[in-house]
Amino acid sequence: MSKIAFIGLGHMGLPMARNLLKAGHELKVYDLVQEAIDELAAEGAKAARDARDAVAGMQVVITMLPASKHVEGLLLGEGGLLESITTGSLVLECSTIAPDSARKVHAAAKARGIEMLDAPVSGGTAGAAAGTLTFMVGGDAAALEKARPLFAAMGKNIFHAGPDGAGQVAKVCNNQLLAVQMIGTAESMALGVANGLDPTTLAEIMRQSSGGNWVLERYNPWPGVMLNAPASKDYDGGFMAELMAKDLGLAQETAQHSLSSTPMGALALQLYRLLLKQGKGKKDFSVVQKLFTE
Amino acid sequence: MSKIAFIGLGHMGLPMARNLLKAGHELKVYDLVQEAIDELAAEGAKAARDARDAVAGMQVVITMLPASKHVEGLLLGEGGLLESITTGSLVLECSTIAPDSARKVHAAAKARGIEMLDAPVSGGTAGAAAGTLTFMVGGDAAALEKARPLFAAMGKNIFHAGPDGAGQVAKVCNNQLLAVQMIGTAESMALGVANGLDPTTLAEIMRQSSGGNWVLERYNPWPGVMLNAPASKDYDGGFMAELMAKDLGLAQETAQHSLSSTPMGALALQLYRLLLKQGKGKKDFSVVQKLFTE
Amino acid sequence: MSKIAFIGLGHMGLPMARNLLKAGHELKVYDLVQEAIDELAAEGAKAARDARDAVAGMQVVITMLPASKHVEGLLLGEGGLLESITTGSLVLECSTIAPDSARKVHAAAKARGIEMLDAPVSGGTAGAAAGTLTFMVGGDAAALEKARPLFAAMGKNIFHAGPDGAGQVAKVCNNQLLAVQMIGTAESMALGVANGLDPTTLAEIMRQSSGGNWVLERYNPWPGVMLNAPASKDYDGGFMAELMAKDLGLAQETAQHSLSSTPMGALALQLYRLLLKQGKGKKDFSVVQKLFTE
Amino acid sequence: MSKIAFIGLGHMGLPMARNLLKAGHELKVYDLVQEAIDELAAEGAKAARDARDAVAGMQVVITMLPASKHVEGLLLGEGGLLESITTGSLVLECSTIAPDSARKVHAAAKARGIEMLDAPVSGGTAGAAAGTLTFMVGGDAAALEKARPLFAAMGKNIFHAGPDGAGQVAKVCNNQLLAVQMIGTAESMALGVANGLDPTTLAEIMRQSSGGNWVLERYNPWPGVMLNAPASKDYDGGFMAELMAKDLGLAQETAQHSLSSTPMGALALQLYRLLLKQGKGKKDFSVVQKLFTE
Repeated sequence: MSKIAFIGLGHMGLPMARNLLKAGHELKVYDLVQEAIDELAAEGAKAARDARDAVAGMQVVITMLPASKHVEGLLLGEGGLLESITTGSLVLECSTIAPDSARKVHAAAKARGIEMLDAPVSGGTAGAAAGTLTFMVGGDAAALEKARPLFAAMGKNIFHAGPDGAGQVAKVCNNQLLAVQMIGTAESMALGVANGLDPTTLAEIMRQSSGGNWVLERYNPWPGVMLNAPASKDYDGGFMAELMAKDLGLAQETAQHSLSSTPMGALALQLYRLLLKQGKGKKDFSVVQKLFTE
Repeated sequence: MSKIAFIGLGHMGLPMARNLLKAGHELKVYDLVQEAIDELAAEGAKAARDARDAVAGMQVVITMLPASKHVEGLLLGEGGLLESITTGSLVLECSTIAPDSARKVHAAAKARGIEMLDAPVSGGTAGAAAGTLTFMVGGDAAALEKARPLFAAMGKNIFHAGPDGAGQVAKVCNNQLLAVQMIGTAESMALGVANGLDPTTLAEIMRQSSGGNWVLERYNPWPGVMLNAPASKDYDGGFMAELMAKDLGLAQETAQHSLSSTPMGALALQLYRLLLKQGKGKKDFSVVQKLFTE
Repeated sequence: MSKIAFIGLGHMGLPMARNLLKAGHELKVYDLVQEAIDELAAEGAKAARDARDAVAGMQVVITMLPASKHVEGLLLGEGGLLESITTGSLVLECSTIAPDSARKVHAAAKARGIEMLDAPVSGGTAGAAAGTLTFMVGGDAAALEKARPLFAAMGKNIFHAGPDGAGQVAKVCNNQLLAVQMIGTAESMALGVANGLDPTTLAEIMRQSSGGNWVLERYNPWPGVMLNAPASKDYDGGFMAELMAKDLGLAQETAQHSLSSTPMGALALQLYRLLLKQGKGKKDFSVVQKLFTE
Repeated sequence: MSKIAFIGLGHMGLPMARNLLKAGHELKVYDLVQEAIDELAAEGAKAARDARDAVAGMQVVITMLPASKHVEGLLLGEGGLLESITTGSLVLECSTIAPDSARKVHAAAKARGIEMLDAPVSGGTAGAAAGTLTFMVGGDAAALEKARPLFAAMGKNIFHAGPDGAGQVAKVCNNQLLAVQMIGTAESMALGVANGLDPTTLAEIMRQSSGGNWVLERYNPWPGVMLNAPASKDYDGGFMAELMAKDLGLAQETAQHSLSSTPMGALALQLYRLLLKQGKGKKDFSVVQKLFTE
């Protein structure tokens, strides 16, 4: 069993930390929101006074924060948390951030003799609660083997994407593709229905044909086609459109870095921003269907 | 066993007709290319002198032609083939054409007491040869039941998409989505590789994650990821980019009809036209990968 | 002075016919709406009972109709109006229609010994009323010289675009570009204002710089920048978004014909269709600004 | 006459500095490339040993560098050049950089009692040589009045865009619009020519109509339409495609900051990146015409 500092107890971090607790690990937890700390303390975690207190004497540090600036702000620079983490420890940085930011943290950790993995997740809050997240991991393969039991307590699929930063690159590539096929699916659904097709019939034909994709398997954006999908619950729950916009923004930042051309990914970002303008940012990202129907 | 007239013996029609022959049906065949007629005649089909000769006395007529204008030109108008087809016959119009064209043919057939189904296929020349095509069928459900054994001799999945023209609508919706996710996949592959990922690793991560789709399962556009995919054979074989451009054009024609907004589908068409300009129209449609890598 | 049949007295046709009357020509007019006929009859035109009655004995026939199907329906086929027009007459077909439709009418007119020009206009209802329209003319240069005084009574700029159909091609090229720079201008206005710039200042800087265009000169889409622009009148008046969507649809039809790639033009069409979905089709086309601000 | 330090003597900076010399100002110049320093020294400038040497005792400092990172790297942080600039001096930062970077430099300058203007230019190397640049200036209006004679020695149009950073915002808005209308113009030219129009005729019709823009006035992308445009010189000279891609990247960075939706601007960037992939980055940005013609 490991001694783990867990920093960042939001919608994703809290259930992830809980799954580690359930697996028998010793956790010391910290968040800016005291209620989140208290909730886990009531379930057996130790409450930290601050981030520095959380990491003191720990072998493993897990961070789950909103964006690049929070990760860099917490870990890097003079007085940054890396200075307080014990040499030889393992940092699992699970936030979704820019690959460049991840690489900066890798370099700073290495300079202090700390092992680090960038390990963004997919699967949403439901996957975090159920312990079925996917981890896309960048960094040293041996470090991944050490961390595997911890990832396994929180998730189901654990991929070694490649060297430092590769986890983040894999995540933005995957989520860009997800956004493109969500919009593509929504367009074809709207086109077919506008031309007389029954939405459930069309969805089933495409699912079994060369148009098949994860969206059609699990997450159809047309209300009523899948009763458990957010589309059938007024687009509540699931993965918020504003988070998809954030990930598509990271994809464009990554594309800028390599001067890659991604016309579909770029257009997807612009369409999600139209949705945000319309006040639909807190709805599930399948709400993009509404762009084409109302 | 049925007596079938089969008109249109191109890359798709010829192997489809052959599978009907093998299943024991009596065929009379016609094409503008005499060699195609001769080839099937050598295998047991009767050779027709012209389209009118082909349909004389037949119960079933199957047509497999390049585009709307050929179908309308053959069947409709004064002296059109519908005038020569026996009342009570069944026409299976398997070409991929505009839904509006299909509906015109439906109406004309009905006016002459002929049953008709629009039944475009997907699965390509390989599916046509193997008898594993998908049929997306529009028209009367009872007529579909009569035709089912014939479809089953040529294909595997047979979907009733809805009323007259619905087969064509389903086909353009599916192929538009296919094009969008082919390009989306190609973009994410290029983005990941340009940022240091191994293509096979990235492909596998996305395939198992929320980016999963038919392209990643069967048809990866990055050379070497799937040895049997056209991408690994210099993009030869498969489904030609110019045919995908044709289908995307039909999707835009359909969208014009319903004033549907399909930004991803429209962009996909423009990108395929760029490929055609570059002389890549005869390559498999996964050649769109090259837009982003060279 | 000419004897002119004028068919199609809508928002554009009526003021165009009135300007011909004012210039002293003899007009016989027809429209499906009796009030329009009566209005011009009160000003000195002769009222026709139907289209055939309008053209009887006339030297010049001007048509101004909504779309390709109306023009083809009126003029072509058995019983079409071309059969009733005197050989040697001149037809000025001023509707905005597909270049292919225009070429069909040219061919049919030629076959009957009738001269024809395709002569779509730009300038909107204001230009029609003021007699300042632009005519883009396709067809024989000598025929254009004959027609020039008539065009001059209705418009200011008269361009000979080229052979049969070239007027329509020039019109769709121009209007596609107009839509692209309207949207481009709206995007840059919204981007600048969202980042702290004063809209009038930004508009003036771009107008005088390399971003300068007709939209910035005459038709700024940001409310309040130009007091006479539709944007400052709740986007009322001007050129309706649904008409721009029609013209962009013609551009795509033309591009399909030549397999031209027009990514910006295609995207412009999709964005206008989003506006139509939002119920803004009757507003001036500069209403596209609202996509980016609300 | 002012004592001016000029740092950054590239394709733009060198002719700008030369114009200041000609206007009678005293210049001390620095660049990483010794030849550039020598060239101006031969014309009367003082040669600086390094950037610090250049600014010592000067009242005005002008910087003209490639990108945000160079500007921040030179001026900011411990040991940054701002520490060596005399309090009360005026810094004219003429590089094209991210608005956010410009605001950082403004804040740091203010903290040291140094006046600063962000003043990116447009007009290209030809405008720099001729002294006809456009300056888009952000910052204090009084500081702009002090700097006006210097701007006037280098340029013709001097705009006060607004507060700190506003010059950069105006520049990215303008250049995004320029790129959109360059591509839009190229699309319409290719569409028209593919449908039978003469390029010069079409260009002239659109120039005088509602499609009119700066590109059609000065910079037609179709070879042969304007003999002095880069298009008629194999796209040599002018404003390089890779610089347009840089500016469009800054526009997207700015849009990310405000979550603005800019579908046309985003697509323009992706199309320029396709050109860069094709090895056309060093050609004039009107080379985008070739995407649609070859």
